Amino acid sequence: MHRSSAHEASRLQLNAQDRLRHFLTTEGLSRDHLTEILDTAESFIDPVTGAIVNRPLLAGRTVMNLFFEPSTRTRTTFEVAAKRLGADVLNIDISKSSTSKGETLRDMLWNLEAMTADIFVVRHGDSGAAHFIASQVTPKVAVINAGDGRHAHPTQAMLDMLTIRRHAGAFENLIVAIVGDIRHSRVARSEIHALQTLGAKEIRVIAPRTLQPRDFDQLGVKVFERMEDGLVDVDVAIALRVQNERMESALLPSSDEFYALYGLTRDKLKHAKPDVLVMHPGPINRGVEIESAVADGPQSLILKQVNYGIAVRMAVLSLAVRGQGEQR
Amino acid sequence: MHRSSAHEASRLQLNAQDRLRHFLTTEGLSRDHLTEILDTAESFIDPVTGAIVNRPLLAGRTVMNLFFEPSTRTRTTFEVAAKRLGADVLNIDISKSSTSKGETLRDMLWNLEAMTADIFVVRHGDSGAAHFIASQVTPKVAVINAGDGRHAHPTQAMLDMLTIRRHAGAFENLIVAIVGDIRHSRVARSEIHALQTLGAKEIRVIAPRTLQPRDFDQLGVKVFERMEDGLVDVDVAIALRVQNERMESALLPSSDEFYALYGLTRDKLKHAKPDVLVMHPGPINRGVEIESAVADGPQSLILKQVNYGIAVRMAVLSLAVRGQGEQR
Amino acid sequence: MHRSSAHEASRLQLNAQDRLRHFLTTEGLSRDHLTEILDTAESFIDPVTGAIVNRPLLAGRTVMNLFFEPSTRTRTTFEVAAKRLGADVLNIDISKSSTSKGETLRDMLWNLEAMTADIFVVRHGDSGAAHFIASQVTPKVAVINAGDGRHAHPTQAMLDMLTIRRHAGAFENLIVAIVGDIRHSRVARSEIHALQTLGAKEIRVIAPRTLQPRDFDQLGVKVFERMEDGLVDVDVAIALRVQNERMESALLPSSDEFYALYGLTRDKLKHAKPDVLVMHPGPINRGVEIESAVADGPQSLILKQVNYGIAVRMAVLSLAVRGQGEQR
Repeated sequence: MHRSSAHEASRLQLNAQDRLRHFLTTEGLSRDHLTEILDTAESFIDPVTGAIVNRPLLAGRTVMNLFFEPSTRTRTTFEVAAKRLGADVLNIDISKSSTSKGETLRDMLWNLEAMTADIFVVRHGDSGAAHFIASQVTPKVAVINAGDGRHAHPTQAMLDMLTIRRHAGAFENLIVAIVGDIRHSRVARSEIHALQTLGAKEIRVIAPRTLQPRDFDQLGVKVFERMEDGLVDVDVAIALRVQNERMESALLPSSDEFYALYGLTRDKLKHAKPDVLVMHPGPINRGVEIESAVADGPQSLILKQVNYGIAVRMAVLSLAVRGQGEQR
Repeated sequence: MHRSSAHEASRLQLNAQDRLRHFLTTEGLSRDHLTEILDTAESFIDPVTGAIVNRPLLAGRTVMNLFFEPSTRTRTTFEVAAKRLGADVLNIDISKSSTSKGETLRDMLWNLEAMTADIFVVRHGDSGAAHFIASQVTPKVAVINAGDGRHAHPTQAMLDMLTIRRHAGAFENLIVAIVGDIRHSRVARSEIHALQTLGAKEIRVIAPRTLQPRDFDQLGVKVFERMEDGLVDVDVAIALRVQNERMESALLPSSDEFYALYGLTRDKLKHAKPDVLVMHPGPINRGVEIESAVADGPQSLILKQVNYGIAVRMAVLSLAVRGQGEQR
Repeated sequence: MHRSSAHEASRLQLNAQDRLRHFLTTEGLSRDHLTEILDTAESFIDPVTGAIVNRPLLAGRTVMNLFFEPSTRTRTTFEVAAKRLGADVLNIDISKSSTSKGETLRDMLWNLEAMTADIFVVRHGDSGAAHFIASQVTPKVAVINAGDGRHAHPTQAMLDMLTIRRHAGAFENLIVAIVGDIRHSRVARSEIHALQTLGAKEIRVIAPRTLQPRDFDQLGVKVFERMEDGLVDVDVAIALRVQNERMESALLPSSDEFYALYGLTRDKLKHAKPDVLVMHPGPINRGVEIESAVADGPQSLILKQVNYGIAVRMAVLSLAVRGQGEQR
């Protein structure tokens, strides 16, 4: 997607008052938009205990999970988030419904809308699928992108931003490095856009050449091939999951080789700042992307990320419903 | 099923006060019964916005969806309806439970009852299955037929009646034509009974000879083979879904041929009243039973049907629970 | 598992105040512990109507069903119980989540915890799995064993105890016989421990030699090979399900032969007390473990067991949450 068309697509997620009414991508959103998501997410975290607080902002609303690509993890977090907001949640079995009876996607969406859906949470293997769906639904429905192809995974990016803001401090002071298969990662794309918009001091990607992004100059990131170089002075290191299933060809070295070169180990982290924080979108492959001692160590924020994911999804669901209400 | 036994079977769904306590078939129900269902359904539709209203009439009740034949669409509508009434809903995975362990159907039902089920929503491939199940359960449980074999699909029929009443007006003034595979359609059977009971002026079926009902004189419908004849002066045209999977042999012409002869097109609809309304139980096969311009056009009520389906299922669930309570 | 290690394992399920905070096994629990479970279960049964009463003790809590071994029946009872307590319930599709992506069990548990789970209901094919899981979770989570390998099925045992207490009276006066495949039965193991702790007058097991427990002297039960001997003076006869799928080799005679020798028939029950009560954990194999006339007869408590199972699971869920709260 070109930058101009990306920004056009992003317009789709804002209402006439320039407020979120879908949540499709971090691209094209302003710092105010992203900060509002983070602030709203914080409002669902008890300041004393750190526990996620229930708030019935979606009572009487119906959330439908449309997972064209299976992901128990992400679906579960959305289900928990929606229930904590008091919504009714339905997991639609896509494989059994539309496709088997030859219904078109558009007809399926219209039918689910007519069944009084208020929100579609969409996961799809094709890049741009969430945008397409958002372009088809009526003004009554809000669409949340739970990952589409190689394009975006914006709630994952925002939970990472919340984790950074809560544990590493102001973005202006931070050097953040993303390590691994940047080229095929929707998480990386969404993170880079969010980090830029939120004003991170420096964004780096560290990857073998075959996995480096093709448009890195456009993306505004510094590209490194070696960890020894890329990790220097880094405040936050984010390891990506090695998506074997997403690789089209043998672009990737073996797991062992990958670990030797790019695995986040205590040794390699010595190049970074002493209090460097470590993140990973999960599920982790121990001994591939990350050393167990690092994943389970004091600098790891991996489980915090999962936990904040509930609050961020609650934020996005409730903001989209609010914005969709203003639109009508 | 013969007419007399049909009426006997229908008794099963009424309590001692002659009120609904199961909902198995439109056959044998009085105009008052059907009108009460329609009026109750209307009570769940906001008169100003048209939105479906939540009402906790089933709070604390447990609805179990027993789908022996998969149908994501119908199951989803019942799940939404039950949740909007405040019930707890459980989708029982039939394939994994009873059959795999050699339990009899009766034992399975008794066990689910003992797990404090209040309502079974039943979908089954065999005609008469819902009646059988209703004959086996204790007085504590209400059974709703969500489609059984070729026999009945009464909630679909009633949502069609609600659609007609809200958009076409009094049944006494209406000529309604049902088009397609009448012989194998549980929807058509249930619709014909409901239309007769509600006093439709004339009920027509239009189908190739192989798909015409065998008992049409008993059914009290006029049978047509050609659309040019059958559509004349029609107020409401209902296309049925072409159920390839349900046809036992090659009774059906090819899709193209079917569309040429029986597809609801703008051209063919010129034979009907100018403001003829068009319905279809969905999911639609565009270019087989219906032209896209018709399905998406101003006279189409197809998505209204889906929407009213929620209200009708709320009505039937709440009425059956009331009637079952009186019985005890 | 040896007795000493069993008691050690049991400590895991108690908090510092010696109160339940997981529920893993009946073994090692005191009579007070078991009686509290039974009394709490009774509190959820309406004394007049016998109906299960809702009580929102788990409102705002998230229960996750982790069924590594499928069991629609048991999962459904836990789902109903948790919903009647006002909890949000999520059925985690284990097969699609962890295993497919190579995540370790421990990582999966930590992730689900971070998604704000309060309770894991665990069913697993391996003996000791529930203990292992309880040993891995943080203090925030309570673990309920819904059956692990051949080891324990403690909620089944406790619902049997509740059935006996409500219908047969004080344990001190009762001779209870368990019939069938004792050796491979987690239900039998859990029942024997519970009956002993609650002070049953005499516990008998009746089985062919190949299916008798190996440690019966440790278990403190009387072993019989013939029904004519074992049923004499019995107050309660519990038939076990013949678990064909669990037998490793051809230890079992044919179904017909088993029925002839060990099936609970009217004839064989003449050896027991005249008002002997008959139980079975379900689902029953009619004509294998039990005669239909017995299963459906006035002395059968089989459906009562299922019904009380809801109350017992409500008790265990609410007690574990209370005990886990005290621990923190």
